[in-house]
Amino acid sequence: MSLADSVLAGDLLALARLLTEVENSSPASRTALDELFPHAGKAHLIGVTGATGTGKSSLVNQLTLKFRKPDTGDPRRVAIVAVDPSSPFTGGAVLGDRVRMRDLAGDRGVFIRSMASRGSLGGLAQATAAMVQVFDAAGFDLILIETVGAGQSEVDIARVAHTTLVVEAPGLGDDIQAIKAGILEIADILVVNKADHPGVEKTEHALKTMLSMAHPVDKVFLQHGQAATRAGQADGAKVWVPPIRRTIATDGTGVADLVAAIDQHARHLHQTGDWLRRERARLEVELETLISETLNSRFRAVVSDEVYTEVVDRLVQRRLSPGEAVEALLNRKF
Amino acid sequence: MSLADSVLAGDLLALARLLTEVENSSPASRTALDELFPHAGKAHLIGVTGATGTGKSSLVNQLTLKFRKPDTGDPRRVAIVAVDPSSPFTGGAVLGDRVRMRDLAGDRGVFIRSMASRGSLGGLAQATAAMVQVFDAAGFDLILIETVGAGQSEVDIARVAHTTLVVEAPGLGDDIQAIKAGILEIADILVVNKADHPGVEKTEHALKTMLSMAHPVDKVFLQHGQAATRAGQADGAKVWVPPIRRTIATDGTGVADLVAAIDQHARHLHQTGDWLRRERARLEVELETLISETLNSRFRAVVSDEVYTEVVDRLVQRRLSPGEAVEALLNRKF
Repeated sequence: MSLADSVLAGDLLALARLLTEVENSSPASRTALDELFPHAGKAHLIGVTGATGTGKSSLVNQLTLKFRKPDTGDPRRVAIVAVDPSSPFTGGAVLGDRVRMRDLAGDRGVFIRSMASRGSLGGLAQATAAMVQVFDAAGFDLILIETVGAGQSEVDIARVAHTTLVVEAPGLGDDIQAIKAGILEIADILVVNKADHPGVEKTEHALKTMLSMAHPVDKVFLQHGQAATRAGQADGAKVWVPPIRRTIATDGTGVADLVAAIDQHARHLHQTGDWLRRERARLEVELETLISETLNSRFRAVVSDEVYTEVVDRLVQRRLSPGEAVEALLNRKF
Repeated sequence: MSLADSVLAGDLLALARLLTEVENSSPASRTALDELFPHAGKAHLIGVTGATGTGKSSLVNQLTLKFRKPDTGDPRRVAIVAVDPSSPFTGGAVLGDRVRMRDLAGDRGVFIRSMASRGSLGGLAQATAAMVQVFDAAGFDLILIETVGAGQSEVDIARVAHTTLVVEAPGLGDDIQAIKAGILEIADILVVNKADHPGVEKTEHALKTMLSMAHPVDKVFLQHGQAATRAGQADGAKVWVPPIRRTIATDGTGVADLVAAIDQHARHLHQTGDWLRRERARLEVELETLISETLNSRFRAVVSDEVYTEVVDRLVQRRLSPGEAVEALLNRKF
């Protein structure tokens, strides 16, 4: 029985082993990913991003608890991938795992995996995508991809998600600074966590102002349909204006409402065909990355180290430009 | 006379035109970069990074003024490349250019160029490197590469520099948050700007603590040679422990001292051979990027859109895995 088969059969130990293989990009993981691929594509991928201090991790915990014990309907299986791209040299993305364990321990319907950065950012986004695929094939209904920080790296990692939550909190210093335009652009749902803290109105107001700039065509919604926007979009609406939800992750206030918004976004994606479009775009990027990697490794296999070193020598001596170097290398060997 | 020739002859209008071509990655810019390549490689490339609110831009201004009007020696020509990777949709990285102009206007020995992000981060790092090369060939002695923010993107962009300054300031909220480990790793010189603000001791202490973790082998320096470290390394020392410098950019306090540390780092790099090693590493990355781009565009030229679309269709239907798709595409066409 292959590792992939064991994972498909529900073996959690095999799942953990495969995730390690995936994190190390081992050849075994490549084979397993190919085997799992036909079984993936069903999970709802949810990105959760936002600056440190917003209470993101607690919110992810609370969301998970709510998905496991919903007010109505069946419990769903939840995987959490917690990614920390900002600490290349600490060597461990702990992200409050221990705190989590207390609430979620012993629940076989929840699987948590942390991942620290190891050098290349592209590599991290790729490893995250691969992990998500493993969880997806293993039958998890919801996969929460949590990233620390709020930079370009998080945008890249979140790109894999169907639904992206951007978490803010009152009192994080300068508003303009905390709410980055680039981050807002990728938000499907905005969450103002720590809604019991002072300044929540101000934070929500700042978000609304930035939303109206980011979605100028939807201004009419924000001006005339504030109530409708606040309550979320009507099912079947063509345009999704990111709703803003207030939560208090420490006691679970607003989390049921947030779950409803997440489910509504999934329905919206299916109804408009966006689900399939995002899936396609994602697979296209994956294909392009793999093509690029394969071409490069084939190229390096036919160019000897001696030739390569000689070319770099001449570059350093400025006797050859990079353009001329590539021309020479490719025409000699291809 | 080609655009490159005009730039080499000192024509600033041609320089501005070429920088625009480079920012647009036009075919003309490729040719010009090849022509300029033999003339580059002399400038001292200085990265300046740090979070918003640290007064980075004012510091870059003051540094430039000091390079132009040194206490001793000849004035040096300075180019500033200001990069803002965090605002993909504002479409303009103004970065206080207008404020700068007041101090530096009319000085032909200073050239300032801002660049906003346009989508891909890799593209931005590449465009920055190309701009730097143009300034280098055009005879600028110092090229200051200023990046907004303090994420992975800044690390990638700063990688082009010989000397990287990481700017901090007191009172930017949580210390652990403001001083990111990943950023510290790339720092050659640490600057505590706004040194007249309260909390400067605390910020400097936090930096020292993190330095001693990031440079464990150099602990002996920090423990026994605090004074020596604070004063900068002795010329010819093999290990460079990043010195910490206090500045007040608004009135220029400490800037002469910072210039001295920058020049000392350049000497250190030359004496240890690190200058050449960094140059080589940089050119190698440039070569690899160009090879990768060329391979990909050649590949896309031989695979028809129909075939590519069909492969993506099958991926979406999960009838083909990405691994199998690449295999099929490459074996059919290569």
